[in-house]
Amino acid sequence: MLETVGSEVCGTDVHLFHGRLSGVPYPIIPGHVVCGRLAESQAAIRDVEGRPIADGTLVTFYDVFGTCGACWHCLVARAATRCPHRRVYGITTSAEEGLLGGWAERVELKPGVRVVPLPDGVEPLDFLGGGCGLPTGFHAIERANVALGDTVVVQGSGPVGLNAAIFAQLSGAARVLVVGAPRARLEAARRNGTDEVCDIGEIPDAAARVRFVRERTGGRGADVVIEASGNPAAIPEGLEMLRDAGRYVVVGQYTDSGDVTINPHRHVNRKHADIRGCWGYEFSHLHRALAMMGKHRERFRWRDLVTREYALEEAGQALADMEALRVVKAVIRP
Amino acid sequence: MLETVGSEVCGTDVHLFHGRLSGVPYPIIPGHVVCGRLAESQAAIRDVEGRPIADGTLVTFYDVFGTCGACWHCLVARAATRCPHRRVYGITTSAEEGLLGGWAERVELKPGVRVVPLPDGVEPLDFLGGGCGLPTGFHAIERANVALGDTVVVQGSGPVGLNAAIFAQLSGAARVLVVGAPRARLEAARRNGTDEVCDIGEIPDAAARVRFVRERTGGRGADVVIEASGNPAAIPEGLEMLRDAGRYVVVGQYTDSGDVTINPHRHVNRKHADIRGCWGYEFSHLHRALAMMGKHRERFRWRDLVTREYALEEAGQALADMEALRVVKAVIRP
Amino acid sequence: MLETVGSEVCGTDVHLFHGRLSGVPYPIIPGHVVCGRLAESQAAIRDVEGRPIADGTLVTFYDVFGTCGACWHCLVARAATRCPHRRVYGITTSAEEGLLGGWAERVELKPGVRVVPLPDGVEPLDFLGGGCGLPTGFHAIERANVALGDTVVVQGSGPVGLNAAIFAQLSGAARVLVVGAPRARLEAARRNGTDEVCDIGEIPDAAARVRFVRERTGGRGADVVIEASGNPAAIPEGLEMLRDAGRYVVVGQYTDSGDVTINPHRHVNRKHADIRGCWGYEFSHLHRALAMMGKHRERFRWRDLVTREYALEEAGQALADMEALRVVKAVIRP
Amino acid sequence: MLETVGSEVCGTDVHLFHGRLSGVPYPIIPGHVVCGRLAESQAAIRDVEGRPIADGTLVTFYDVFGTCGACWHCLVARAATRCPHRRVYGITTSAEEGLLGGWAERVELKPGVRVVPLPDGVEPLDFLGGGCGLPTGFHAIERANVALGDTVVVQGSGPVGLNAAIFAQLSGAARVLVVGAPRARLEAARRNGTDEVCDIGEIPDAAARVRFVRERTGGRGADVVIEASGNPAAIPEGLEMLRDAGRYVVVGQYTDSGDVTINPHRHVNRKHADIRGCWGYEFSHLHRALAMMGKHRERFRWRDLVTREYALEEAGQALADMEALRVVKAVIRP
Repeated sequence: MLETVGSEVCGTDVHLFHGRLSGVPYPIIPGHVVCGRLAESQAAIRDVEGRPIADGTLVTFYDVFGTCGACWHCLVARAATRCPHRRVYGITTSAEEGLLGGWAERVELKPGVRVVPLPDGVEPLDFLGGGCGLPTGFHAIERANVALGDTVVVQGSGPVGLNAAIFAQLSGAARVLVVGAPRARLEAARRNGTDEVCDIGEIPDAAARVRFVRERTGGRGADVVIEASGNPAAIPEGLEMLRDAGRYVVVGQYTDSGDVTINPHRHVNRKHADIRGCWGYEFSHLHRALAMMGKHRERFRWRDLVTREYALEEAGQALADMEALRVVKAVIRP
Repeated sequence: MLETVGSEVCGTDVHLFHGRLSGVPYPIIPGHVVCGRLAESQAAIRDVEGRPIADGTLVTFYDVFGTCGACWHCLVARAATRCPHRRVYGITTSAEEGLLGGWAERVELKPGVRVVPLPDGVEPLDFLGGGCGLPTGFHAIERANVALGDTVVVQGSGPVGLNAAIFAQLSGAARVLVVGAPRARLEAARRNGTDEVCDIGEIPDAAARVRFVRERTGGRGADVVIEASGNPAAIPEGLEMLRDAGRYVVVGQYTDSGDVTINPHRHVNRKHADIRGCWGYEFSHLHRALAMMGKHRERFRWRDLVTREYALEEAGQALADMEALRVVKAVIRP
Repeated sequence: MLETVGSEVCGTDVHLFHGRLSGVPYPIIPGHVVCGRLAESQAAIRDVEGRPIADGTLVTFYDVFGTCGACWHCLVARAATRCPHRRVYGITTSAEEGLLGGWAERVELKPGVRVVPLPDGVEPLDFLGGGCGLPTGFHAIERANVALGDTVVVQGSGPVGLNAAIFAQLSGAARVLVVGAPRARLEAARRNGTDEVCDIGEIPDAAARVRFVRERTGGRGADVVIEASGNPAAIPEGLEMLRDAGRYVVVGQYTDSGDVTINPHRHVNRKHADIRGCWGYEFSHLHRALAMMGKHRERFRWRDLVTREYALEEAGQALADMEALRVVKAVIRP
Repeated sequence: MLETVGSEVCGTDVHLFHGRLSGVPYPIIPGHVVCGRLAESQAAIRDVEGRPIADGTLVTFYDVFGTCGACWHCLVARAATRCPHRRVYGITTSAEEGLLGGWAERVELKPGVRVVPLPDGVEPLDFLGGGCGLPTGFHAIERANVALGDTVVVQGSGPVGLNAAIFAQLSGAARVLVVGAPRARLEAARRNGTDEVCDIGEIPDAAARVRFVRERTGGRGADVVIEASGNPAAIPEGLEMLRDAGRYVVVGQYTDSGDVTINPHRHVNRKHADIRGCWGYEFSHLHRALAMMGKHRERFRWRDLVTREYALEEAGQALADMEALRVVKAVIRP
């Protein structure tokens, strides 16, 4: 059992509220990324290295469970994030099954759920400032194979984009540019080491934004572009921002926001592009992302991404603020 | 100097004839892939291992030259097929510069052109049956990282697609399916080891072709799909044929045949797809492809892909037959 | 429950008999790779694609079980073959726990054991001719990243080496050389497509064997060398056979047969070598290896590697014949 | 032509002085890594992006030239650092050919030599503090494929080791440990962000040093170990420090300092280790390393690695100080 200290509000929660995802077993308790204190453990809870975790310790947990380790996706394709048995707290768990979401005073830890203690010096708000954007942005950067000295463009300045911009720097990018809006999110990007930002409010023309990137990359485009905007129109724009033989990671299209038109000759074949979808995250991404947060919590200010904390009964307001982009990161504190 | 034995007619030649490529320095001598006999060599011509090649030897050569080895693309990005100084016999060379194309009795070997003797037992028609589709299909399969036991779908049954189907088998695919037309090309695919073919003449509905693939892959789609059709509409169809976390190589869109609509959520992000453009080929692809042809010339019948040979003065007919898909592979014999 | 049709005798069984492995819970029932018929299944046994397998079907199973999927090795390092909870039928299972080895009339299938039906046309002796060398050799070749057109040298002509030589061909090697003994095993290599063999009985001098390889590789050495001999002295010899920047896979040193001296400057640093240890195999290796056996059972004659079949009470003789290299592959038929 | 500002003294220079390398065309002008000002350029010198570099600009250059781009190693194996035509300023160039070494007032730039301007804010002593250890350490870390969150051990605290420790951090290592001596070098490692050092003067027992690493890595060993010590005995020690399925890069064995004994079962096969030799560096390593130095020159103090500057006539003293490890980095200022 976990006594909830806080749970994030993420973009998926807004989509869930509007019923935009299929296969959700409503009613649900939202809140897939949670921070709390272990309590009333029947058996010893252990971390991934086998060390017992005492009740009262501040922990989070990997929100995905039920991955079978026995199906074709898990064993042959080694694509565990596409395992059909995969379940996620707060998204694919029904309230009728128990307390399986973070917007509640207590969260039930199902057998097999992987618990991770917060590293020394990391407080709940640090972790929740990262939220699910932390392992998601981490996974996107792992997919991107950033080389030391690369220039990385991130499309989108929401939590996933901001975390991707941080992990791009930690992976050795020599330069990180963020293309997004509104201003407050771009300022957060700047405070967290982004070299330059391109405000789509100020530069509403996609071709002008492509020029912005090309002018800063010898006319060639960036080595890596990360799509974290959620807007289908970002796809051709990002491919125009990418250099020949570069890597383009699509991590922002978690819900179906519609189709988009591309030119396969220019955007893919002649460009010799690598386009990589990035779905979900594995335990290793959460584990490694937390280790990096422990080491770099002075350099990057995840905590400051939390614009406002909400009581449980203010959850509706939190969703409304999130949807209107009035906050960078909203946290529910039961 | 090379005394031409034969030169292929490829799809690019049809596009060149219609003026569909930009930046071509007309008039040109077409024919970028050539087979001939070395003649009148001033200095010793050597193969890549440093051995001299005697005049009279049957050889081909790597049609790309001028790659600088000194620019950002060559040295930093290591993307030599995107080097801006790259030139190609019969495509980006003007007839005013000399005999730099294969539709002529003799071809001039510029300094630095890499000459490759035909392997023992490989005759000019074997090599020309592969043509530029040989190293192009080879490169596509290298990009695909076929794992032993994979199922590979090839979209398109032209020379690139047929060679991709052959190299997929040689790379360890357990099963290769070709989706294409017309019948004669699909029969060539079957004779060369393709397990099953899907005739788009018989199954004109894209959704039905996707079902064809999914029914043969446990409902999941193929591990690898190679787009070698040249039709933009093949892109979303191929992505629907691909399994989650599979690899999709786009090698057929060498000219701009228009835009296409995809769904970034379903086709890229949720699918965790790897989409890889594949432009040109490097010397290593030609070198290795020829070694494989030498070894497997009994098992695969490249020579039989040559439907008809044409004299120089019949070149117009060759282009017309190629465009009408009346031939699999046309060869000019000066 | 499995009614045993046959179980292999492998080199590890000889080591087990002599007590050369540590941590073995004697008494054990040997036989980790087994073929049999499903019988008396309580719950539905399903294959990895989720299809039920009827009682009476000829199957094998992945001999490793108990891999936890929850420890640091499984989740963070993604090195499941080094999971400390990993257990193996016939090796780390005690006879006191049940019928957990193939040298018995029946084998108990523990929960979570992955069962694989033999592909159409594959008979028990085909599979047992491959034995544990099948997935082990498969894994070694996966580690080697064979490129189309490579020259591959295999050191050792036991079951692992012979399977590695087969999978090297299936992965696109243009040439495969096997260095080993005795003559009967080298003949098996030749019958299974190996281009040339080097008999260490006839060429007892290591430097002469290195010359044998270099003379066939332009003086440079092979692109890939697979160590499958079990002799520590093979290591420096194999590294001398390897070209600069080549890949050397060490898969034969499953037991500690002693130390060996290498020169780190010449063998590793200046050579820019990739040396890759290869421990155990995962389910995917068995699954994919079987698919390849199903496809290529005419081309490669795994069944012919079975030199002799033994009744259960002849197991001692089988071990003695195996140790004396009088047989290529011995099979116990209870 | 280059007016020399400074040239480094590296370990190879000490070996050259003692005649320990074969094939050196004595007499030579030592000094392969040089910083100077462009002067008297006949034709426009351009950087890799094609921009002209004005005379008077502070530059360095890639010390390797003559790589042919046409041989089997360059074209087929894509292993340019093993091209047999490769030549290196100050090492494989004779004084009789011209001013081809940095211990001279002027250095001649041969055709095809790649010149790189120092990035804004990088001064000659910054660059020379890195010296050839900069691209060498960079290449080693590229070979290591550091994952975000990894623990990296560096064996050796000379210039290569110190640069490897810096680039390991920049690549996303969560923790870097350096094992070396003497104290002054370890202090330089600490000042440059190394988390912990192990002084081999204080812990002379190899087994105790292995324990030092294992105690800090959950008993498992490090994800990555970089051998940069030059001592053959470091090899088995480093392999004991490595976790199962970890990566071990051997970059310190540039001269033949003798053989060493390893256990192939324990150190390679059962460990499932990746052991990677690392020879020379390519232009991209120098280019990217300099970009990183430009970005991180405040965080890492390369300049402080220069313990002492020497006039040309003090070169003998510089070599003696280098050999006695009295300096971290010595620089010749003509």
